[in-house]
Amino acid sequence: MATWFTEKQTESFGITAKINRSLHKEQTDFQNLEMLETEEWGNMLVLDDMVMTTEKDEFVYHEMMAHVPLFTHPSPKEVLVVGGGDGGVIREVLKHPSVKQATLVEIDGKVIEYSKQYLPSIAGALEDERVAVKVEDGFMHIAESERKYDVIMVDSTEPVGPAVQLFSKGFYEGIAKALKEDGIFVAQTDNPWFKSDLIRQVYSDVKETFPITKVYTANIPTYPSGLWTFTMGSKIYDPLQVAEDRFHDIETNYYTKELHTASFALPKFVKDLTEGEGR
Amino acid sequence: MATWFTEKQTESFGITAKINRSLHKEQTDFQNLEMLETEEWGNMLVLDDMVMTTEKDEFVYHEMMAHVPLFTHPSPKEVLVVGGGDGGVIREVLKHPSVKQATLVEIDGKVIEYSKQYLPSIAGALEDERVAVKVEDGFMHIAESERKYDVIMVDSTEPVGPAVQLFSKGFYEGIAKALKEDGIFVAQTDNPWFKSDLIRQVYSDVKETFPITKVYTANIPTYPSGLWTFTMGSKIYDPLQVAEDRFHDIETNYYTKELHTASFALPKFVKDLTEGEGR
Repeated sequence: MATWFTEKQTESFGITAKINRSLHKEQTDFQNLEMLETEEWGNMLVLDDMVMTTEKDEFVYHEMMAHVPLFTHPSPKEVLVVGGGDGGVIREVLKHPSVKQATLVEIDGKVIEYSKQYLPSIAGALEDERVAVKVEDGFMHIAESERKYDVIMVDSTEPVGPAVQLFSKGFYEGIAKALKEDGIFVAQTDNPWFKSDLIRQVYSDVKETFPITKVYTANIPTYPSGLWTFTMGSKIYDPLQVAEDRFHDIETNYYTKELHTASFALPKFVKDLTEGEGR
Repeated sequence: MATWFTEKQTESFGITAKINRSLHKEQTDFQNLEMLETEEWGNMLVLDDMVMTTEKDEFVYHEMMAHVPLFTHPSPKEVLVVGGGDGGVIREVLKHPSVKQATLVEIDGKVIEYSKQYLPSIAGALEDERVAVKVEDGFMHIAESERKYDVIMVDSTEPVGPAVQLFSKGFYEGIAKALKEDGIFVAQTDNPWFKSDLIRQVYSDVKETFPITKVYTANIPTYPSGLWTFTMGSKIYDPLQVAEDRFHDIETNYYTKELHTASFALPKFVKDLTEGEGR
């Protein structure tokens, strides 16, 4: 008998994937963690019944979270990733030679442990000597940091469970303080088909703190609707005004310098979430 | 007990949607047709167990198939839609005042009949006086047409069943003949996650017939992977060289003139399908 994992992305819609076997399952101190071997997507990390990443499509999310802000900044040296215990964003960060240190702050050490074991192509980067891994509360880490980072990336779960604080206005103010005077911040902000209110709220909150606030998108087939948004807050640098010679060749499977710019061209109904009141 | 419709988009992955009720189901002369009332997406047209369109997300596909070629052409007057019996592409075509006649050639009259009944916001456009509806074989219609159309859009099902001929090189050659000297053609060409070979093949075939061949994408949440491709063949006009004053305001929910250009910026792994051999 075939086993299928189904994620109900809404009350009445979901995805379903054939499972070869469950590799690991446990209730951690923070969430329900499961590692599944799927037929279509390779190994898949599931937290609280939501797909976090898979071996086959992980490159989209990780490349787009890392390279858009890192190429927007002229010379990122100190980079912080909040969440992202699978290590995928860190792996992409390390492709930028200007980066001197990449700090990962993940609240749930079990995510790191089982990603290293079952997602080695993603988590292997955590062993790099430029990486500092801290198993602690990202909200607290941000509160205690001042003018320290060039780029901060918030690679969180959905705003339920351990990540709920990471979608608050106070958190964005803390991030602004933790960034240097020309720092850039980016967060994953879910999808516009089922979570339009969240995108509108985050955009509005970030905009009150950062002079340049923009939303960009990427296609992630195992995430709800396949259309994912990222919200960027920047103190000085405009992601749409990157000097042509700033882009250097890096090995990617999704990101290109053309897509860097194109990903900010939003579908009309998404653009409307970032414009005016009552739209 | 709740009823769910599951489309297996591959052997080991799919989407699943809660069904309120089945509105109609029959085996037509060409395919299995089912109209479902879903909780998440409104009414949904399913052909041979594949989602064709839904009331909630149909605007993406229909706008992107119609407006990209129609704004690329400086003054489209005669437009042909092959397939597309739901009427959605025709509805978008009619938003262009230059269009004198929009011809729909759909092989399966039942698709038109039940779309009019259950998808009136989509199929209503078929009643417009500028529209000519022909229930006949699109392949034959193309073979019998010469220098007739400014823009031809192929809104087909997947290359199985009645649509298999619509993905052949001979068909593209027929389209080139049926188009005027400065005509433009576009076809839906499935998704790059599960059907990369199809995209590579169609791109290669179209390129042998049309001087300007380009692929663009759109996010369609109820289609496999959520990332859909369209392949455009054009005799003269470049979709990336549209004069700024060519764009006029039309009411859309997805298409914008910025997205017109941005949709041609392909993810690296999709771009690779259109470049070189053996990649």
